[in-house]
Amino acid sequence: MPNYCFSDDLNSLRQRINSFLQQRLQRFDSTPAPLADAMRYGILLGGKRLRPFLVYACGRMLHAEPQALDYAATAIEAIHSYSLIHDDLPAMDNDTLRRGQKTCHIEFDEASAILAGDALQAFAFECLSDMPMVSAEQKVALIKTLAAAAGGQGMCLGQSLDLVAEQSAVSLEFLQRIHHNKTGALITAAVEMGLLCSPHFDDLALRQRLVRYAQAIGLAFQVQDDILDITADSSTLGKNAGSDLLLDKSTYPKLLGLDGAKQKAEQLIASAKAELQDLNFNTEPLINLADYIIQRHN
Amino acid sequence: MPNYCFSDDLNSLRQRINSFLQQRLQRFDSTPAPLADAMRYGILLGGKRLRPFLVYACGRMLHAEPQALDYAATAIEAIHSYSLIHDDLPAMDNDTLRRGQKTCHIEFDEASAILAGDALQAFAFECLSDMPMVSAEQKVALIKTLAAAAGGQGMCLGQSLDLVAEQSAVSLEFLQRIHHNKTGALITAAVEMGLLCSPHFDDLALRQRLVRYAQAIGLAFQVQDDILDITADSSTLGKNAGSDLLLDKSTYPKLLGLDGAKQKAEQLIASAKAELQDLNFNTEPLINLADYIIQRHN
Repeated sequence: MPNYCFSDDLNSLRQRINSFLQQRLQRFDSTPAPLADAMRYGILLGGKRLRPFLVYACGRMLHAEPQALDYAATAIEAIHSYSLIHDDLPAMDNDTLRRGQKTCHIEFDEASAILAGDALQAFAFECLSDMPMVSAEQKVALIKTLAAAAGGQGMCLGQSLDLVAEQSAVSLEFLQRIHHNKTGALITAAVEMGLLCSPHFDDLALRQRLVRYAQAIGLAFQVQDDILDITADSSTLGKNAGSDLLLDKSTYPKLLGLDGAKQKAEQLIASAKAELQDLNFNTEPLINLADYIIQRHN
Repeated sequence: MPNYCFSDDLNSLRQRINSFLQQRLQRFDSTPAPLADAMRYGILLGGKRLRPFLVYACGRMLHAEPQALDYAATAIEAIHSYSLIHDDLPAMDNDTLRRGQKTCHIEFDEASAILAGDALQAFAFECLSDMPMVSAEQKVALIKTLAAAAGGQGMCLGQSLDLVAEQSAVSLEFLQRIHHNKTGALITAAVEMGLLCSPHFDDLALRQRLVRYAQAIGLAFQVQDDILDITADSSTLGKNAGSDLLLDKSTYPKLLGLDGAKQKAEQLIASAKAELQDLNFNTEPLINLADYIIQRHN
């Protein structure tokens, strides 16, 4: 890949996943009920499409078929989007603004937002069961990986631990446990899914290195989120800044200081990049992504 | 099966699925968060286990391996249980009583109930990806069938349509569309999943007959539910009786009269049984189940 430009790659894959998402969502028409509109609203609201990028970048590096990656990227973004819709609900984080726009339950209503999230989760697994260009064994491995990352030992557990943490001060160790599950599990699943779509699907050593890369950038992503909540303004963030302080949440800057948190994020990114060293593949996009994680402003 | 006793069979399969569910749920320990407890509470609360019975009865009839059926039955009951947990939420049906006990969000809290439902859905698909004694192709077909039945063209759509119907009087046709999705989709998936676990997984003609059987008993189940909401008391039902009247909901008795609704249920059961005629398998349990649907008191 001569003259690789990360931001062009990110934008072009973002367009690719958005267009594929739109196409796959055409099957849903729930007229006169608001369900299909709420599903579309929740998943097409925008967003960085970080997890799809990881699926594409990792899969492409390992020579997976692009058409298969479309399905895997859609599935993981559907899970991520449903979790945001549910997290924003009044009973959870009670957020009215997401990616600069009204959250799903504000645009529609609470019941529709709950159902749209539920239907997006089912959509994710249906999508993986429909995937072309891979074997049935690969599909089962993809489904197992995504379900484990999304469920009661992954993302949902992280969210539940997070709600516990809101009610009391927590240790750095506990904070890491939250984020390891709440955001780390899906980010890790994204690189695993890229690998599982590829001819290297059964290379366990490679999988473990990619998992360690993803765990490090996942945690760095969260540390950076905490930093931005303090240093950025709402219009740049596209959500309400300062909400952690307002809720007196345990964050990395609170536990480590702002400089300590920045240092932590940099260490994590360095260790992520170290995992990619000497791999016999073109790791440039994944290395660029790692840098982007702590350089982003929203 | 000499001297077949339906109620013994129903009880014994109910015990089997409850014990397998308990065993599979052991993997979840979310201490100090309430997630795992809320998941267990929601799925082990009791219930008829009608969908697992259909999986077992249909799969057994077609010589599927019992161990495979445990996984399929668990998956479908996890989807059903998550939908009940979410349906009971204040933003949806706002029910405090389910199967004679406090609903999940009353026993825990709303956020935990939302997350427990979400995690149970992921659990369902993880369970199917782990299934023994079937091919990867069969697992993919099982996952596709369950995801389609649960999502935006199935159960979730039915629930969304139901919420629309609560705000206005609806036609008999619309009411059938609601129930075809809201309860019918999963009941139909249950028999399909029984077949997909068996050596007859690719017998499309057989699948279509079983689907028609399931669609008919699914609709009859709903008609009977509406009838019981009028004729039974809360302690027998294990939930608040008369809630349809209170909400001025469109129901079969309201649209057809009580006798008309009873007649409708009987016609549906007769057509369900007709689908099983001349099948070269032991259809006795499925026939008994059809009769049970309209003879039950809760």
